Amino acid sequence: MPSFVTILDFVGTFAFAISGIRLASAKRFDWFGAYVVGLATAIGGGTIRDLLLDVTPTWMTNPMYLICTALAMFFVILFGKYVIRLNHTFFLFDTIGLALFTIVGFSKAYALGYPFWIAIIMGSITGAAGGVLRDIFINEIPLIFRKEIYAMACVIGGLVYWICLVSDMDSVLSQIIGGITVFITRILAVKYKITLPILKGDSENP
Amino acid sequence: MPSFVTILDFVGTFAFAISGIRLASAKRFDWFGAYVVGLATAIGGGTIRDLLLDVTPTWMTNPMYLICTALAMFFVILFGKYVIRLNHTFFLFDTIGLALFTIVGFSKAYALGYPFWIAIIMGSITGAAGGVLRDIFINEIPLIFRKEIYAMACVIGGLVYWICLVSDMDSVLSQIIGGITVFITRILAVKYKITLPILKGDSENP
Amino acid sequence: MPSFVTILDFVGTFAFAISGIRLASAKRFDWFGAYVVGLATAIGGGTIRDLLLDVTPTWMTNPMYLICTALAMFFVILFGKYVIRLNHTFFLFDTIGLALFTIVGFSKAYALGYPFWIAIIMGSITGAAGGVLRDIFINEIPLIFRKEIYAMACVIGGLVYWICLVSDMDSVLSQIIGGITVFITRILAVKYKITLPILKGDSENP
Repeated sequence: MPSFVTILDFVGTFAFAISGIRLASAKRFDWFGAYVVGLATAIGGGTIRDLLLDVTPTWMTNPMYLICTALAMFFVILFGKYVIRLNHTFFLFDTIGLALFTIVGFSKAYALGYPFWIAIIMGSITGAAGGVLRDIFINEIPLIFRKEIYAMACVIGGLVYWICLVSDMDSVLSQIIGGITVFITRILAVKYKITLPILKGDSENP
Repeated sequence: MPSFVTILDFVGTFAFAISGIRLASAKRFDWFGAYVVGLATAIGGGTIRDLLLDVTPTWMTNPMYLICTALAMFFVILFGKYVIRLNHTFFLFDTIGLALFTIVGFSKAYALGYPFWIAIIMGSITGAAGGVLRDIFINEIPLIFRKEIYAMACVIGGLVYWICLVSDMDSVLSQIIGGITVFITRILAVKYKITLPILKGDSENP
Repeated sequence: MPSFVTILDFVGTFAFAISGIRLASAKRFDWFGAYVVGLATAIGGGTIRDLLLDVTPTWMTNPMYLICTALAMFFVILFGKYVIRLNHTFFLFDTIGLALFTIVGFSKAYALGYPFWIAIIMGSITGAAGGVLRDIFINEIPLIFRKEIYAMACVIGGLVYWICLVSDMDSVLSQIIGGITVFITRILAVKYKITLPILKGDSENP
């Protein structure tokens, strides 16, 4: 029986893949292109993390991620017209994925003995770098550099997770609190349109 | 005396480098920029593969790839005007490169003990990821996500190669059959303009 | 007491980060986006080098690079309007960074036993690849593929450094001569607007 975390991992991967496939379809990519962009969105963050940590990328140890992206692909092909109406559902899934990926990424680095600030960065990369890769593939400026708080939710959640850990809190409880922090930060940011300030350095003279 | 495979490798590298250099020249890159884009097109796929497999990138073990790209560069500088007329020749070279790179990439992963689906992906990355890198460098949407069947030819060839291997066919014969499959799939796709369907998810609302 | 090289490293990182942050601000990135682009500019080259050499990326061994980028960020936020007037100062800093990063990258590869041509490439990647990453993030064609001699200064400096080394010159002296070569090449290139030729392959038929 798959564990709860495995189910969440599947939900997150599915939602991330859908986000990549939808944006690829808006650019009129073919099925192959859409699949690759969906896959990159879903596994890109974890792959960059694993290259930096010098371990085998997770997706190379389990075909689940490829299969899950294929399912997301069929889903968009079959229900493309209805996917728009499910925006709220996908936003929820995407946020679950973001929270889970952040905690998984943090835990992996921390378990390898890296200090907390590396773990926070690895959590954020796991959660947010797939979306950057997606936007590079579709030739757009990465959304997370300009929209509401997204990767900052990973940083905050990672920080809370670490504070729980050094307070000798139970490991599983710490993970849950860290993940919920990412989730709530992101939900609040979207609900109240909380954005970071735009940097006004010398935009008049780029 | 260089082996047949070494010659094919040189031909493929040369053709891939030419493809990068030509597109860079269309964007008015300088010599250095064109060389880098040519090199990235030729060795980019193999480098991404080797980073994922955690082995030393092939181009770092043999200066042949840098020299071959330099030759491609001089070729375009000297014969730029005539290169256009050689479109058919380069298409042939490019397809030979695609077939060879796919088989090399598959074999490398398979020899390291990875399962067939990883080997197929590594073959496809070796064949097609250099072109994606090239298109990112020249700031265009990657061509292979939208044009005729290209990376899919790598997937199909890899699959055929694997079927040959598990059928206890001779290793060299399997490689040849796999490579020819890539070659023919690509040739047929271009000749008959075979494309994958465009994904129509929600392009009206991107 | 920090050594002279540590101070130069800080200066170079600061200047590279400023360059990324300024370009991000011109694209109206938020604080987070600008920080990430600044960081990628500063540490991107070294990270790609370390992934290729299969060693732990330098920035993961010392939080100095993250802190230095944060300082660059605060600097732009506070003194944004005046940063423009400091163009000459930043050009100087950026060139110091380029020279230092080139020598550091060359030395790292050479100390690991790689041949001189790999070391030259690693020096150039350390110096110039961060800027390529920056331009990909802000969705522009990489500047170094088209503007005055930049990465070529790294190649020339690396070559001179290597010639010094094989001439049995003192190691520190070789580094200084190599670094000064990068510095002067770049300064002269900008002062006299020295550019590499534009490649005219078949731009009329891209």
